[in-house]
Amino acid sequence: MIEKILNTINSPKELRLLKQEALPQLAKELRAFIINIVATKEGHLGASLGVVELTIALHYVFNTPNDSIIWDVGHQAYGHKILTGRKNNFHTNRQLGGISGFPKRDESIYDAFGVGHASTSISAALGMALASKLKGDTEKQHVAIIGDASIAGGMAFEGLNHAGVTDANLLVVLNDNAIGIDPSVGALKMYLTNVKKGTQKRNNIIKALNFDYSGPIDGHDMEGLISELKRLKKIKGPKFLHIITTKGKGLKQAEADQVKYHAPGKFDSLTGDIIPKTACMLPKYQDVFGHTILELAKTNAHIVGITPAMPTGSSLKFMMDAMPDRAFDVGIAEQHAVTLAAGMATQGLIPFCNIYSTFLQRAYDQIIHDVALQNLPVIFCLDRAGLVGEDGATHHGVFDLSYLRCIPHLIIFAPRNEIELRNIMYTAQLGLNQPIAIRYPRGRGVTIDWRQSFSKIEIGKGVTLKKGNTLAVLSIGTMAQYVSEAVLNLNVSHYDMRFVKPLDETLLHDIFKTHKTIITVEDNSIIGGFGSAILEFAAKHNYRNTIKTLGIPDVFIEHGSVDELQKDIGLDVEGLEKFFGLFL
Amino acid sequence: MIEKILNTINSPKELRLLKQEALPQLAKELRAFIINIVATKEGHLGASLGVVELTIALHYVFNTPNDSIIWDVGHQAYGHKILTGRKNNFHTNRQLGGISGFPKRDESIYDAFGVGHASTSISAALGMALASKLKGDTEKQHVAIIGDASIAGGMAFEGLNHAGVTDANLLVVLNDNAIGIDPSVGALKMYLTNVKKGTQKRNNIIKALNFDYSGPIDGHDMEGLISELKRLKKIKGPKFLHIITTKGKGLKQAEADQVKYHAPGKFDSLTGDIIPKTACMLPKYQDVFGHTILELAKTNAHIVGITPAMPTGSSLKFMMDAMPDRAFDVGIAEQHAVTLAAGMATQGLIPFCNIYSTFLQRAYDQIIHDVALQNLPVIFCLDRAGLVGEDGATHHGVFDLSYLRCIPHLIIFAPRNEIELRNIMYTAQLGLNQPIAIRYPRGRGVTIDWRQSFSKIEIGKGVTLKKGNTLAVLSIGTMAQYVSEAVLNLNVSHYDMRFVKPLDETLLHDIFKTHKTIITVEDNSIIGGFGSAILEFAAKHNYRNTIKTLGIPDVFIEHGSVDELQKDIGLDVEGLEKFFGLFL
Repeated sequence: MIEKILNTINSPKELRLLKQEALPQLAKELRAFIINIVATKEGHLGASLGVVELTIALHYVFNTPNDSIIWDVGHQAYGHKILTGRKNNFHTNRQLGGISGFPKRDESIYDAFGVGHASTSISAALGMALASKLKGDTEKQHVAIIGDASIAGGMAFEGLNHAGVTDANLLVVLNDNAIGIDPSVGALKMYLTNVKKGTQKRNNIIKALNFDYSGPIDGHDMEGLISELKRLKKIKGPKFLHIITTKGKGLKQAEADQVKYHAPGKFDSLTGDIIPKTACMLPKYQDVFGHTILELAKTNAHIVGITPAMPTGSSLKFMMDAMPDRAFDVGIAEQHAVTLAAGMATQGLIPFCNIYSTFLQRAYDQIIHDVALQNLPVIFCLDRAGLVGEDGATHHGVFDLSYLRCIPHLIIFAPRNEIELRNIMYTAQLGLNQPIAIRYPRGRGVTIDWRQSFSKIEIGKGVTLKKGNTLAVLSIGTMAQYVSEAVLNLNVSHYDMRFVKPLDETLLHDIFKTHKTIITVEDNSIIGGFGSAILEFAAKHNYRNTIKTLGIPDVFIEHGSVDELQKDIGLDVEGLEKFFGLFL
Repeated sequence: MIEKILNTINSPKELRLLKQEALPQLAKELRAFIINIVATKEGHLGASLGVVELTIALHYVFNTPNDSIIWDVGHQAYGHKILTGRKNNFHTNRQLGGISGFPKRDESIYDAFGVGHASTSISAALGMALASKLKGDTEKQHVAIIGDASIAGGMAFEGLNHAGVTDANLLVVLNDNAIGIDPSVGALKMYLTNVKKGTQKRNNIIKALNFDYSGPIDGHDMEGLISELKRLKKIKGPKFLHIITTKGKGLKQAEADQVKYHAPGKFDSLTGDIIPKTACMLPKYQDVFGHTILELAKTNAHIVGITPAMPTGSSLKFMMDAMPDRAFDVGIAEQHAVTLAAGMATQGLIPFCNIYSTFLQRAYDQIIHDVALQNLPVIFCLDRAGLVGEDGATHHGVFDLSYLRCIPHLIIFAPRNEIELRNIMYTAQLGLNQPIAIRYPRGRGVTIDWRQSFSKIEIGKGVTLKKGNTLAVLSIGTMAQYVSEAVLNLNVSHYDMRFVKPLDETLLHDIFKTHKTIITVEDNSIIGGFGSAILEFAAKHNYRNTIKTLGIPDVFIEHGSVDELQKDIGLDVEGLEKFFGLFL
């Protein structure tokens, strides 16, 4: 398709000069453009296809960038990026040095608020709207676009609850496609379904919260959308528009398999068929978790699994399919997930609560206040710890060791490979008297033959991987793999400490007494993380060894492949080897 | 009053043997008992007076402790404690070694879940209810009692959203008294008010979330309560009972001034009159904040203030009274408060976001993802940092330095006195290009003449308070006061580092070069906190000095006066002096 209209649009200014009749054709072209690029460059597909009409209608009706548009999460903002001056470098999406996969204030004046995590848009837009009001600007419009999965997050409710009693110039657009990454769940989803069916007419939650509610309307009907947005634009105060869309709209397979086509990898842009990846025998860590919890749950009736809206991403879906009564997708609700687990643990259940490292930040208080303070044996599995690659700064899991380490009672473990992940899961469900956090990375492991029989791991015991002289390298988690390669030809000791808490003090005393220099390696912030734990140990015991801590520097790391990002900060094999060499 | 019935109740078993006609008399006695003890021993009064009938009715109808009762927050659980075997040591409430001011699992089998922070009860009770279901126990009842302020917290919504699609045996009792510590706010509060008035009949939020809703009923009508609870007990699945109560019920002044009588201090149990405290000329830190933000806001039109439900506790109420358009109480919604501030900051406002240290744990992700990642100059004021005393383990603010320090872009400052607090607030509103967290303690400062003219603080600069030899003590925040006393007669240098981030590296190089031993002192966890920052500095620059880090040990500190708790862990003047002496 020749993008004859799209090619004339360098900014929403040109868009707003178009006749309204031309917009459906623009929608076609925009959709084709997204499909063509994402087919070869990869990225998030379904969400952006679903809001093509909405995106055009918003920029057509509102005076962006003066009016602010805030996309919740941001997976759906590709059309927005393309229409706001980023068409020509959209092919660099999510690549090192390229544009971000999410709206980002640094990148464009049209990106009113940076996003990535869910449920923030209403609060941010309300903040802007209240600011406009204070500045005496009564014309400026503030629009939050939020999906039905994200609006179920508690933070979104907090935003609605505040907005409803203000006279702020705020429009909340609910993009209701009944799915986040996985299908939406919960009573609110059921409510929205009933609204769509016409079987819930009486009790309107949004009206009860004092919003001017309209909808539901068809989110793919350009004319209807534009006329409703124009009407709402004239109404002052908090407004709410409920639109119905189809995730993946316009690509048959993407509509049919919305979970797979959320981020399908490479696919044929004409047929929509996903191009199979080169077969890899190495398992994903998430699958090791998913298969192992199911395997353990078959013999231990107390085990339950919990995920906040990530059944596919965490692979808890294996257990959800096999044992639907014992595995819970609670929706985008990390806070609830953690305290639900705590409640279950009081009754003798053994909850595995699987949350991506970056999203566990949402439940920090619950870990401290509801789990650790009561010393309840909840087993946290932190997927996507460390650098996650293309999702970038909003999604790297590089703070968990720092924010978890100060919590009393909590055990913190990082497996260096799949076997260790399986064995610590096995160990944890045998019965701990305290909570444990197990962190592991995104992506694939290193062990083809990973389904080995279980063996118990002694809590607080590290392991010696290589013995050398003078220099000892202490690694945590899967950084062990890089370190092992880096020390292959060096006369260096290498220890996998495994437990960030409690530390293996016996092993550490031995290490400190027999080596002049200690280097720690982690894929967590060097501030307050594993390296700092070693520094604290050394200070406590008056060791004077030279200690160097390697890890994530004190900056927000942008997007790129994990390999590229690690190289950038010297955490690749070559960088490590070079650094170790300085101390030999 | 002679507690002739209350004295026969050692556990709910005896309560359940009473005739229902005797219960109103028991309510009278229980109310009198609470008033008498709290009048002299201090504590939280109003909330427990409001639920006397409910407390009796719950234990009368439900088979506690087999049936689980979970009190949200827990301020209201005094009656529950007294009826469940703790009458005779209720006078030790909140004292060192005495019973906790909140429900606590360690303390009693009747305390099904430990609480302190708001909005957790639905998630915890649902976890228990799902556990019972999995265990095949269909009889066990699980009751969450939550106030109208707490249910507005996003986490409570997450719990309702999940519960509504389960068939768990869960009863949520909404104790609607239109007030938390301060009067409730928000659209949900407006909705509940309309329900009570009968002007909101059509849109029922709770029914829309698939709960079996009943109410509103009078929460002081024992007969009505019992009959409704009995009816609900027989209904399976998620149920919701909306009751209307009066905070402070039964004590005239407490009903009339519900904010003051939330925790009134000592009062005359007969007249209800509050007994004035000995006049103290030293200001509370919260008041220094409250007066200073108002003073600054008068000359800087960009300043706004935000509190999540703590206008009185933070003293933001001074600004709310004087500038209602520029100071916002957003209710129990820490997550929203932080991202609202971020949204405001994008528009050039200067938001002071005041959140107690312990409650900022609720907004950890928002600080990272919405504020720091976008480098927005939000000014966080963390009240109640360090040990808070009688509120105990759930409320100590002893983790903030650890969890904030790893966040890029964030400045972290702790004033040693009121003047420093004022000056850093002044400095921050002059315009920073990044966010800042200012932490200060509960209680009173040290400076009578604290209203001095402002002077600017150079970011990242520490100060020298005393020069000595050999040993340097580095303190942060108000620990400076204790250290100053402890080093009075010692030949010791004392530095107030002021900034935990960025560190004053120039000063540190000087200190490390001129002292053999460095001791850090903070009222934050010794794991990952200020002391660790100094260890990281030393390791980076290859210093071999002896470094000792003093702070909060790696345990949850219980309740007691701040003085007692500090003495316990060696952070009092005597303890510090003794420790310093070991290195001289």
